[in-house]
Amino acid sequence: MILVNGAVSDTVPVIDRGFAYGDGVFRTLQVRSGRPLAWRYQFRRLQHDCSAIGIACPSEAVLRNEIARVAEHERICAVKIMVTRGPGQRGYAVPRESQPARIVMSTPLPTYPTSWSETGIRARICSLRLGFQPALAGIKHLNRLENVLARQEWQDPDIAEGLLLDAESNVIGGTMTNVFMVRNDALLTPDLRRCGVSGATRDRIFDCAAAHGIACTVSDVPLNEALQADELIVANSLIGVWQVRELNDREWAPGTMTRTIRRWLDEEED
Amino acid sequence: MILVNGAVSDTVPVIDRGFAYGDGVFRTLQVRSGRPLAWRYQFRRLQHDCSAIGIACPSEAVLRNEIARVAEHERICAVKIMVTRGPGQRGYAVPRESQPARIVMSTPLPTYPTSWSETGIRARICSLRLGFQPALAGIKHLNRLENVLARQEWQDPDIAEGLLLDAESNVIGGTMTNVFMVRNDALLTPDLRRCGVSGATRDRIFDCAAAHGIACTVSDVPLNEALQADELIVANSLIGVWQVRELNDREWAPGTMTRTIRRWLDEEED
Repeated sequence: MILVNGAVSDTVPVIDRGFAYGDGVFRTLQVRSGRPLAWRYQFRRLQHDCSAIGIACPSEAVLRNEIARVAEHERICAVKIMVTRGPGQRGYAVPRESQPARIVMSTPLPTYPTSWSETGIRARICSLRLGFQPALAGIKHLNRLENVLARQEWQDPDIAEGLLLDAESNVIGGTMTNVFMVRNDALLTPDLRRCGVSGATRDRIFDCAAAHGIACTVSDVPLNEALQADELIVANSLIGVWQVRELNDREWAPGTMTRTIRRWLDEEED
Repeated sequence: MILVNGAVSDTVPVIDRGFAYGDGVFRTLQVRSGRPLAWRYQFRRLQHDCSAIGIACPSEAVLRNEIARVAEHERICAVKIMVTRGPGQRGYAVPRESQPARIVMSTPLPTYPTSWSETGIRARICSLRLGFQPALAGIKHLNRLENVLARQEWQDPDIAEGLLLDAESNVIGGTMTNVFMVRNDALLTPDLRRCGVSGATRDRIFDCAAAHGIACTVSDVPLNEALQADELIVANSLIGVWQVRELNDREWAPGTMTRTIRRWLDEEED
C-alpha cells in the first residue's frame, strides 16, 4: 500500500522535484504489528536530513499514523518514507510556495538466507569510488546513482553486499549498509562527513555501545585496516547486522561482537 | 502536455527508479513549430548518457514523434525528455526485466530580460563545490541535488546564473549552463571528466568553432584564469549564449565572441 500525501495512490506528479532532480530524502524501516522499529532514531534522522536540504519535515503524528495505515494488514513489513520538495516548474530554483510531498509505502520485508545472519556473508569491494560532497554527505537523499552503479557491479546472488571506498581508499559503507570494524573489543566506524549515508541503525549502535561501555570510534578507515579487523560487520534497519565472513581473500570466523550487537538491537527495539 | 511512455499522463509510478534513486537521464531542448533544435546533438547526448548508466535509449523515431505531439500547439516551447530505468521493487539492484520509462513534456520557454542577451548578465560564484565523480561526470542524470543546493544560494532576480567550482577551485559550469572563456580570440572550456554536465550546446560550439577555424581548448580552468578572460560566456539550449557582464568585482564590456557564437548557433539550428 502506498500513501501519497495521505491518500492511497501509486503515482506521483511528473513535475515533483523528487522525480526531476532527486530533490528529497527517505528512510527505510521495519514495522512489526504496526509498530515502526527504532522510530525515534528514524524520525530524528529524517528531521535532520530534511533540514539539511531545506525541506519541511512532516510531523511525527502524521507519519506514525500513515505508517500504521500502510502496515495495517502486515504482521511484519518494510516501510519506506520519502519526503520531497514537492511539485515545481522547470528550473533548479526552489519555488517560493513549494509544498513538500510525503510518500509512505509498505513492501514485504526482503528475505535473505538464514546463514547470512548465522555464519556471515560474502562481500566484495566495489570498483566505483564514492565522490566527496560534504554538503550532502551522511544524508539519505534521493540522489542514489552511485549506489545503483555500485550494485550493478555484481550479479552473483551469493554475494550479499558490496563495500564502497572513497577516492582515497577509505571504507565508507556498503551499498545499502553502514559498516563497523572490531579491534581489540572496541568498535570503529567510518567518518561520513565527506560521503556515505548515516543509517538509523548506526546511531543505535553508537548508543548501545555507549550504554554497554564499549568504545566506538568514528574515523577514516583505510581498506587495509578494515581487512585487519577482528570482525567486519554491516548493518541496516532491515537486516540488523551481518558479519562479513569473506572479503577478497580474507576470511573471518564467527565473532562475538556481531552477536553482541544483534542482541543489543533486539533488546532495544524502540 | 506530458507523455509518459507515449500516453498522455501527468504522473509516474512511485516505484519508478527515477523517483526512488534519480536513476535516469534527461535533456532539455527548444522546439520551434514542432522542430527540436540541434536535435542530432541532443539525441547523441541522450544516447551517450543512457548508455553510460546502462539504460536502453528510446529510438529517435519514437522521440521525434512524441516531441511533435507535445509541441503540436506551440509555436515555440521547451521540451524535456527524461529516460529512467523504469519501475523497480525495493533495493538498488537493477531488475533483470527492467523496462525503461520515457517522459516527454512541453513547457513554456522561460523568459528572461532582453538585456541579458544584449548586454550580458550578472553572475555569482556559488559556495557549493561540485564533488568529483568520474563515473557520472558529464552525464545529464537525474541526481541534481548539487544544482538545487547551489541555486538556493541566491534569491536576487538580477543575478542570472551561479558559477560552480570544483573542490580545487576550477570553474566547471553554471548551475544550468556550460561556460566558455575567450582568450586571445580562442575559446577555452572546462574539462568535465570529474564533474559537471555536458550540454548539447557545448558540443555545437565545439563543432562551430572548428568549422570557423577558432581554436577551442578543453582543460581545467582555475577561477583566477576565468576572471582574467577577455569574455566569459554561459550557454545552454534554451538561452543560447549570454555573456557575463559582472562577476565578483570583475566587469566586462560586451565582447565580439559572444555575438559570433550566437550567430553560429542561430545559423546552424539543426
